[in-house]
Amino acid sequence: MEPDVTATGRTAWGSHTAGEIREIASRDGSVLVVPVGSMEQHGEHLPVSTDSVLVAEIAALGAERVADDVPILVLPPLWSGYSPHHLSFGGTVSLEFDHMHRVLEDVATTALENGFDALLLLNGHGGNVSLLNGAVSTIGTAQPDVEVLGLTYFRLAAEFVGEIRDSELGGMGHGGEFETSLMLYLREELVGDGDRPATEMDEPYETGISDMFEGGPLAVYRGFEEYSASGAIGRPDLASAEKGERLYDRLGDELESVLRDVHDRNRS
Amino acid sequence: MEPDVTATGRTAWGSHTAGEIREIASRDGSVLVVPVGSMEQHGEHLPVSTDSVLVAEIAALGAERVADDVPILVLPPLWSGYSPHHLSFGGTVSLEFDHMHRVLEDVATTALENGFDALLLLNGHGGNVSLLNGAVSTIGTAQPDVEVLGLTYFRLAAEFVGEIRDSELGGMGHGGEFETSLMLYLREELVGDGDRPATEMDEPYETGISDMFEGGPLAVYRGFEEYSASGAIGRPDLASAEKGERLYDRLGDELESVLRDVHDRNRS
Amino acid sequence: MEPDVTATGRTAWGSHTAGEIREIASRDGSVLVVPVGSMEQHGEHLPVSTDSVLVAEIAALGAERVADDVPILVLPPLWSGYSPHHLSFGGTVSLEFDHMHRVLEDVATTALENGFDALLLLNGHGGNVSLLNGAVSTIGTAQPDVEVLGLTYFRLAAEFVGEIRDSELGGMGHGGEFETSLMLYLREELVGDGDRPATEMDEPYETGISDMFEGGPLAVYRGFEEYSASGAIGRPDLASAEKGERLYDRLGDELESVLRDVHDRNRS
Amino acid sequence: MEPDVTATGRTAWGSHTAGEIREIASRDGSVLVVPVGSMEQHGEHLPVSTDSVLVAEIAALGAERVADDVPILVLPPLWSGYSPHHLSFGGTVSLEFDHMHRVLEDVATTALENGFDALLLLNGHGGNVSLLNGAVSTIGTAQPDVEVLGLTYFRLAAEFVGEIRDSELGGMGHGGEFETSLMLYLREELVGDGDRPATEMDEPYETGISDMFEGGPLAVYRGFEEYSASGAIGRPDLASAEKGERLYDRLGDELESVLRDVHDRNRS
Amino acid sequence: MEPDVTATGRTAWGSHTAGEIREIASRDGSVLVVPVGSMEQHGEHLPVSTDSVLVAEIAALGAERVADDVPILVLPPLWSGYSPHHLSFGGTVSLEFDHMHRVLEDVATTALENGFDALLLLNGHGGNVSLLNGAVSTIGTAQPDVEVLGLTYFRLAAEFVGEIRDSELGGMGHGGEFETSLMLYLREELVGDGDRPATEMDEPYETGISDMFEGGPLAVYRGFEEYSASGAIGRPDLASAEKGERLYDRLGDELESVLRDVHDRNRS
Amino acid sequence: MEPDVTATGRTAWGSHTAGEIREIASRDGSVLVVPVGSMEQHGEHLPVSTDSVLVAEIAALGAERVADDVPILVLPPLWSGYSPHHLSFGGTVSLEFDHMHRVLEDVATTALENGFDALLLLNGHGGNVSLLNGAVSTIGTAQPDVEVLGLTYFRLAAEFVGEIRDSELGGMGHGGEFETSLMLYLREELVGDGDRPATEMDEPYETGISDMFEGGPLAVYRGFEEYSASGAIGRPDLASAEKGERLYDRLGDELESVLRDVHDRNRS
Repeated sequence: MEPDVTATGRTAWGSHTAGEIREIASRDGSVLVVPVGSMEQHGEHLPVSTDSVLVAEIAALGAERVADDVPILVLPPLWSGYSPHHLSFGGTVSLEFDHMHRVLEDVATTALENGFDALLLLNGHGGNVSLLNGAVSTIGTAQPDVEVLGLTYFRLAAEFVGEIRDSELGGMGHGGEFETSLMLYLREELVGDGDRPATEMDEPYETGISDMFEGGPLAVYRGFEEYSASGAIGRPDLASAEKGERLYDRLGDELESVLRDVHDRNRS
Repeated sequence: MEPDVTATGRTAWGSHTAGEIREIASRDGSVLVVPVGSMEQHGEHLPVSTDSVLVAEIAALGAERVADDVPILVLPPLWSGYSPHHLSFGGTVSLEFDHMHRVLEDVATTALENGFDALLLLNGHGGNVSLLNGAVSTIGTAQPDVEVLGLTYFRLAAEFVGEIRDSELGGMGHGGEFETSLMLYLREELVGDGDRPATEMDEPYETGISDMFEGGPLAVYRGFEEYSASGAIGRPDLASAEKGERLYDRLGDELESVLRDVHDRNRS
Repeated sequence: MEPDVTATGRTAWGSHTAGEIREIASRDGSVLVVPVGSMEQHGEHLPVSTDSVLVAEIAALGAERVADDVPILVLPPLWSGYSPHHLSFGGTVSLEFDHMHRVLEDVATTALENGFDALLLLNGHGGNVSLLNGAVSTIGTAQPDVEVLGLTYFRLAAEFVGEIRDSELGGMGHGGEFETSLMLYLREELVGDGDRPATEMDEPYETGISDMFEGGPLAVYRGFEEYSASGAIGRPDLASAEKGERLYDRLGDELESVLRDVHDRNRS
Repeated sequence: MEPDVTATGRTAWGSHTAGEIREIASRDGSVLVVPVGSMEQHGEHLPVSTDSVLVAEIAALGAERVADDVPILVLPPLWSGYSPHHLSFGGTVSLEFDHMHRVLEDVATTALENGFDALLLLNGHGGNVSLLNGAVSTIGTAQPDVEVLGLTYFRLAAEFVGEIRDSELGGMGHGGEFETSLMLYLREELVGDGDRPATEMDEPYETGISDMFEGGPLAVYRGFEEYSASGAIGRPDLASAEKGERLYDRLGDELESVLRDVHDRNRS
Repeated sequence: MEPDVTATGRTAWGSHTAGEIREIASRDGSVLVVPVGSMEQHGEHLPVSTDSVLVAEIAALGAERVADDVPILVLPPLWSGYSPHHLSFGGTVSLEFDHMHRVLEDVATTALENGFDALLLLNGHGGNVSLLNGAVSTIGTAQPDVEVLGLTYFRLAAEFVGEIRDSELGGMGHGGEFETSLMLYLREELVGDGDRPATEMDEPYETGISDMFEGGPLAVYRGFEEYSASGAIGRPDLASAEKGERLYDRLGDELESVLRDVHDRNRS
Repeated sequence: MEPDVTATGRTAWGSHTAGEIREIASRDGSVLVVPVGSMEQHGEHLPVSTDSVLVAEIAALGAERVADDVPILVLPPLWSGYSPHHLSFGGTVSLEFDHMHRVLEDVATTALENGFDALLLLNGHGGNVSLLNGAVSTIGTAQPDVEVLGLTYFRLAAEFVGEIRDSELGGMGHGGEFETSLMLYLREELVGDGDRPATEMDEPYETGISDMFEGGPLAVYRGFEEYSASGAIGRPDLASAEKGERLYDRLGDELESVLRDVHDRNRS
């Protein structure tokens, strides 16, 4: 039942021939989705591919939900993101800020030659957010005939996550209740068997780092080792596959809605 | 009474000799503030320097409020930001994304050689946000002994702005009630005499563009001419110097609080 | 039975936690494999992911063969390569030459921090060869303590392919008997049902383009549309899953041998 | 009476709306002036903003002198220049050579979109000269319809400075009689109260460094600390506000003449 | 009798006026040759200019052979190549990989403005091969109306070298029997008088490094000091001016043939 | 009698083995000279290699004059400079500004590893001046233990040229009396037989372009075709080999003096 990052289904770019891709892209209101993940440490219980796995799964889910009505393709995830603050833990592969910006631009430039009407960069890693938004601006400037959008998928959960979470604010940090639940549902075999101890983050300023869903106006750079000896933050001990399934379904609902809106707006 | 962008006071970097700057930077918990603005069209009633004027004024105000207790210096504003989406109106000077990133890094690298304990990039332009946050990451990675922070000043108003504004959501967009009030208070002579017509923005997605203080998870690139024929958005007609003064004072309170926190946290 | 590009097995980097990766990398004679593919048109019968699928499969196969004896990890394939000459067909995602060089360097730099003794860039696309060899030089220069190697996997078949092929020279070009056979064996569901017409390439100079296994000293740049209307070259009509299996096994033998040599040479 | 770096007058770009700037730029023979300064140590008696203050003042003066006849705008000074040789004294903010080149190009590219007929890069720092001349070439190559010029303002004084100076050759070096006199006239409050000791520079080759107005053919790189313990060179002790006023007026005459020539030559 | 690197003959670009160059380039089937060498250590008996001397000589020879029939010009050799692996011996001048790539592109871009129908990058240094092939791709992509080719001259000897060589495989490495013979014939005065001891290279993998004319599929980076204490490899002791003359003549035959083919194919 | 650009004499870098170069560089007060020329149109009577030929000749002459006393080596000329303003005439090969800057830095960085005490960039082309001076700064900053100098050779003639010239000011422009005389003396066979008509340049501003030895403070960019239909400026009709010999000898005197000064100053 586990969806596959390689996504060999009908919405997966890599499953098609060049001619098929051109044909889909040429349809009215066509949408291209580029999932952007990371390869970075996620504590002692989650694999380093967590962000890439999750963003690819959510992208595939959203695309499948709309594929009967919307001409849509999903590229494989860009699995290496911008993660300098995690390097000290090991297991992390990170591109330089500018180099990743160039990759996003090149992927968009060449893929959009096929004729898509809209491009959605779908992000799965907090450290990529400013990079992705920057790329939305530079790609958008260069592609006046394409609607260029950026979205960090877990922000889609901001409104409903309160219905599902058991943790207090701070429990859904890096490798916490949210990501662990999704991984237990989607890749249980990759989740460690050991304890998943709770870790509280001690950040003196109000920022968005302590929890994926709340934060103040200040941005601050910290090596992640200043926050957590294990590399995770929050309450992975509260995670469950059942919560993961609920999160997955609701994220699918939200992304479906976004994709339908994008399609509708870009029909001629 | 109008504060001066050149800021020749005691906290202005440019008013000092090299030796004085070194001395201030060497004190315990010293803070460097780099205001980052823009030179871009702000509709038919505001000057193109609006963002640079305001961020420099707020930076100078905050620094002056704490200067008896905190060793602090403020650089002149970087007056050219990232504004490709405003170029079609004229009056706009914009750096390429990467080039501005390099400027922020070079300014930080050389200024920090003097020995500051913390660096605050204080931003005054929405289009700079992802650039600035990216620079916080790359500068922070390169400067492990300095606390590197980023802050867009108008987000400091998110909590209290409801007490002051008369406009509905959407009234405090680019060149709207917020910025016009501040300019009427701080640079009345630069605000146009003519009507300041209300402009409603028609953005189909929930983003943060229509108002400075609300927004959904989606980022989208638009040339600003898609939003507004005048170049402004919101309710500049509701602006007043009196509101500007209240905003200015409350922003000063908030920034003072941030600067004291940064100083305290970085004392040895 | 089809291996999975995501490669969630014991040699797959992405299946592990940061701590596990560090541990493997720290063992004597440890080897990191980075598969480098492409996303480019492969005629009317093969999917655009062909090069990425094949190089990831061969990398996983080689690693699995030696994993009992050799501490080894395989990163996911870099699925976007350098393919400007295929863009006119559509379906192709290509990085600029320099940007892809930077990606290879960044991936190597950060992944090698874990302590590997050797790095093998394993390539699956002819258009990447000079890029990859260039990266071997620049990474090798920067990493004097790591043995840095590059290998284009299909060149491992040069010696034995004569035993398997039915085509004359020129039959094993882009999307020809070789690649089609491997895809029929490994991803039959992605190979088109239609005819797979033979296409002869008319290249006036002796180069290595007309066949993967022969070529003269001259390099020449051509847009691929100058060679083939379908986008493929050679004799895909002679391909079979049975040949694919034989090629796959023999390639596994050869790569196993290389990996064991690399391991042995880099033990302390 | 002190002119203001912010230059809020009629020729200041930042005082205008986008529409006003376009209107001025569209007039026949319109001229854009970009002052380029530095933020670098200037000895123990002058502030680090000296070059930026002076070049902005001279630019504003020249523009004001011709504004009745010439459609002209002056951007705020680019206050950070190229000053690696001053970093060891502190107080210095310096851009990398290439990054500053990019800034000059971006400012020119976007500002010239408004329709100016000529661009004058007006420089106030010796260390910027080759950078500025390089930018004249690259901007000029890219903008065949605009006359692109570069000028280091103090070279305008070469012919008349002998009438004013009391120092011998060498007395008008960095922070010497020339700059100190201008600052005493224009920003007396920023000039230190202490002694301003004379400093002789010991440069074995004939170069242009020892005095702003003479020099041989050889260029040599030196960290400025090899020349002077104080960071200044020459005879600041001979400076006076009265000399500063005379220099200021004569520089205004010379720049006025240049601007009128540029305007005349670029009228259709 | 020694040909001259400066090549002041009729096919030498530098001997002509701009008008003459334009005229030659405009003829049907015109060819531009860019020799690319190196400045790197070549053991204790050969000068560091060896690669540049040889590639310039062979280029001039080939061009002279066809100049009665083919409109052809040869640029001076780019005498600095990519040689990081030789730096530890001294005497080596090397460009960064990307910088040399830019040089090749700029030389091609500006030289081709004259109207040549074909461009041949003729390489004389093993370390330049991937760089040169990369440049063939990027120049070829940018110049769709010009046939862009790359060729490493000594690979032209692959077929006939067996008739001339006395050494076993491995004897014709860097500074070995091949290069020393050519230098004895073309620049005897630059070849050292001392012994030219044989050096066997101990490379554990099958690569192309040990001999210029054989090699396996694997690329590996090594500092050259790992191979040879003298900096040379192979059998310079077997070299002779007589062999050099035979190699020179046969290389001329082969290059003549290539140049005629290129000319013929690019005639309208 | 014609000196040779290849300069195979005792001071020519390319004539030596790596070991010999190291030995010379290690001596007290050693000097490295890098001649920097151009490949650009020089009117209808001079070859496009003029600047490269002359700067290489003068460099070789100066070095030979001092070689008994000063450990000195001269690299081959960098024959492609920065000449965008000459491209429209044809025959011109030009590097981008930044790329040529990188070449100068790379050549310096790798060549200086041999241990030279001083580096002289010797320039022969007006369009290279700001580039070269910029490189003196960036190389000087990066090489604190080496004295880094820049010199445009014809500026050495400023003091004595009045004794030799017959032309008025303006007669010694690009391809005028000065360069033509030197070429008649050093490469008569490359100077065209036809008339060498006088060309007066009509530049409205006082700049240094109209004559090599005089000029005002203003820099202006012009495509050279705005100045001259032939591509030359000044009085080539007044040139003679006899004047060329006198210029050559006096330039040798001046450069000898500079080189001895540099050597003396850099002895320990």
